[in-house]
Amino acid sequence: MALIVQKFGGTSVATVERIKNVAQRVARWKKQGHDIIVVPSAMSGETNRLIGLAKDISDSPDPRELDVIASTGEQVTVGLLALALQSEGLKAKSYTGAQVKVLTNSVFTKARILQIDDSKIRHDLTNGYVVVVAGFQGADEEGNITTLGRGGSDTSAVALAAALNADECQIYTDVDGVYTTDPRVVPEARKLDTITFEEMLEMASLGSKVLQIRSVEFAGKYKVKLRVLSSFDDEGEGTLITIEEDKNMEHPIISGIAFNRDEAKLTILGVPDLPGIAYKILGPIADANIDVDMIIQNVGQDGTTDFSFTVNRADYTAGLEILKATATAMNARGVVGDNKTCKVSGVGVGMRSHPGVASKMFKVLASEGINIQMISTSEIKISVVIEEKYLELAVRVLHKAFGLDKSE
Amino acid sequence: MALIVQKFGGTSVATVERIKNVAQRVARWKKQGHDIIVVPSAMSGETNRLIGLAKDISDSPDPRELDVIASTGEQVTVGLLALALQSEGLKAKSYTGAQVKVLTNSVFTKARILQIDDSKIRHDLTNGYVVVVAGFQGADEEGNITTLGRGGSDTSAVALAAALNADECQIYTDVDGVYTTDPRVVPEARKLDTITFEEMLEMASLGSKVLQIRSVEFAGKYKVKLRVLSSFDDEGEGTLITIEEDKNMEHPIISGIAFNRDEAKLTILGVPDLPGIAYKILGPIADANIDVDMIIQNVGQDGTTDFSFTVNRADYTAGLEILKATATAMNARGVVGDNKTCKVSGVGVGMRSHPGVASKMFKVLASEGINIQMISTSEIKISVVIEEKYLELAVRVLHKAFGLDKSE
Repeated sequence: MALIVQKFGGTSVATVERIKNVAQRVARWKKQGHDIIVVPSAMSGETNRLIGLAKDISDSPDPRELDVIASTGEQVTVGLLALALQSEGLKAKSYTGAQVKVLTNSVFTKARILQIDDSKIRHDLTNGYVVVVAGFQGADEEGNITTLGRGGSDTSAVALAAALNADECQIYTDVDGVYTTDPRVVPEARKLDTITFEEMLEMASLGSKVLQIRSVEFAGKYKVKLRVLSSFDDEGEGTLITIEEDKNMEHPIISGIAFNRDEAKLTILGVPDLPGIAYKILGPIADANIDVDMIIQNVGQDGTTDFSFTVNRADYTAGLEILKATATAMNARGVVGDNKTCKVSGVGVGMRSHPGVASKMFKVLASEGINIQMISTSEIKISVVIEEKYLELAVRVLHKAFGLDKSE
Repeated sequence: MALIVQKFGGTSVATVERIKNVAQRVARWKKQGHDIIVVPSAMSGETNRLIGLAKDISDSPDPRELDVIASTGEQVTVGLLALALQSEGLKAKSYTGAQVKVLTNSVFTKARILQIDDSKIRHDLTNGYVVVVAGFQGADEEGNITTLGRGGSDTSAVALAAALNADECQIYTDVDGVYTTDPRVVPEARKLDTITFEEMLEMASLGSKVLQIRSVEFAGKYKVKLRVLSSFDDEGEGTLITIEEDKNMEHPIISGIAFNRDEAKLTILGVPDLPGIAYKILGPIADANIDVDMIIQNVGQDGTTDFSFTVNRADYTAGLEILKATATAMNARGVVGDNKTCKVSGVGVGMRSHPGVASKMFKVLASEGINIQMISTSEIKISVVIEEKYLELAVRVLHKAFGLDKSE
């Protein structure tokens, strides 16, 4: 008998029918003797509808009131799911975040969880209840309702699992696990049985949006066993996100190929190669709330250097304008940009013990005539920026070259 | 400068546009220097939508979970209204019932308010905020969310006015006040400037559904000055519901003519006239959850008596079946019923000091050939049951006979 937290996303509870399906699934686990805490999101579309109402009233709505409004989406789902569980013959009880209480700081619309009071939940579990807790929300010291930001229900589930020392936190989504890459690009992509937290973090931030990245960090930090599963498939085991890499098995060098299509590249040419240059160039970009992803500074020649970075494609035009102003102020030779680029990354803890992964990656891409524009590496990741038109080709050949199409 | 509680019903906040109108109205009061607490209902249709979702899942949903779900309707409105007030340049803050906290008992879906903590509201008022409190809801000792039952937002408003010792509680509805009778039946019906609590109670229970009867009782008990106003008319003064009848003015004998079309009459004939007979007849009716309105027991002859009562027309068939069984068991002579009846009532505190009101009423009806089937009187009300087809005629002639079409 285990204590399991099960999180169901918006599409899994989108209709009354689907809520009943979720209840049946939870009932099967409960009847196996497990203690279950369920964390549902709002019915899909509901959060957008609620925020839309607020935006119809005010262009920049007060975040405190926005949270009062938005948090009702999950409140409705927990009530409905508790009813559906009761219809399955189970004892069930719902709680809002404020009722639990999930204590957060007071940063409305993107609050952070500080502490969870487990007393009510423990009491109910002991008495045989399935406990249904609203995801995405909490309350601050003064009892103001807060929300955790988009995708915050994943974080709620992980935080509850950590607070109650659960045996496993299961995240039910519309995919049946984490894949070696996007199956829409590479049909041979395989579901991974396990992936490490570090790999998952790199995969998530690189565009494989299965889990909210914050929840993965949280799970890693509190050593919560996290599993991604499909809410529409009763059989699968999903993907287990493990704290440590499995020492007993030969780990693949690369676990997955991630990619991001929304990249744009900006370069400032011939700036004086002096201390503080990175701050002078990127400061104004940060001031405009533009997130910078990869940053490359070429070796300087003649006391000048070229400085490149990538931004989200939506920020390309704004970034270019800012960079032009910076170039003028710094007496740089000029500015060039490219918004037809993409990023492809190989991720794997295996590369720690396998040198030569980078050179293999470069060789594979070169043999297909794909020019690499920028390179960035971390301990378990190699990312390259290439022309967008080569994205599918690059992902496909890398996936094959590293043997990801063969079963583990 | 006064402290005013303003309650807005579902039709007044049915759309974003109307919520903005409400905010403008509140802003005008605030700018006159008043302290304002606003209590909105859910956007009209929303409570039904939410309860509909619950009923799609369960035929008899757990009342605790039903309250979790239904209470979100008002929670959305308070957030939206606070945003709209901020857009009018005011400081505004919303609270759910649980946040305030409005402490209730644990009778889910029809909880009673036990106590209201005024500390947060007082603090905000002192700091210049318009405070927006969700109607219809509260929380019990253990923090479970409760609702007060249909129309409970009126009760919330009155209870807040009582707890904060407000100068006036204004109930904004889609009518501009309380009328001498239904203007759809008598075009000459006049809006009353004032009405006493007692009269209002009789009017409400008799079918003039302007205010929830519980809120009127509550206001009477705690001496809250209650005013009914139109939310669509900026000019009117509405109707003030007064605690005491105004001693300075000549009060009309009758303040209004109320009526109820949904009456059905049941009679058991020739039952033994013995102690306990009423209980024997009405016990089984009450056990079937059928509400009984008027009860008449004729003077017995030959040791037997006829016993009549009225029920809501929807309960007519069920009531008749039960009564037939009772008649058999009691050896009564028989059972007769009539579901084509209605009730017409004259209401007025003035009749306390004016004898002869009943006889005038009977005379007026007789002169129109309207036969009276049952009569019931209280200190400030005379009700008669008549054939339904005479309803409009009876209301019209009584309205005229008691001078209600003339200005006060």
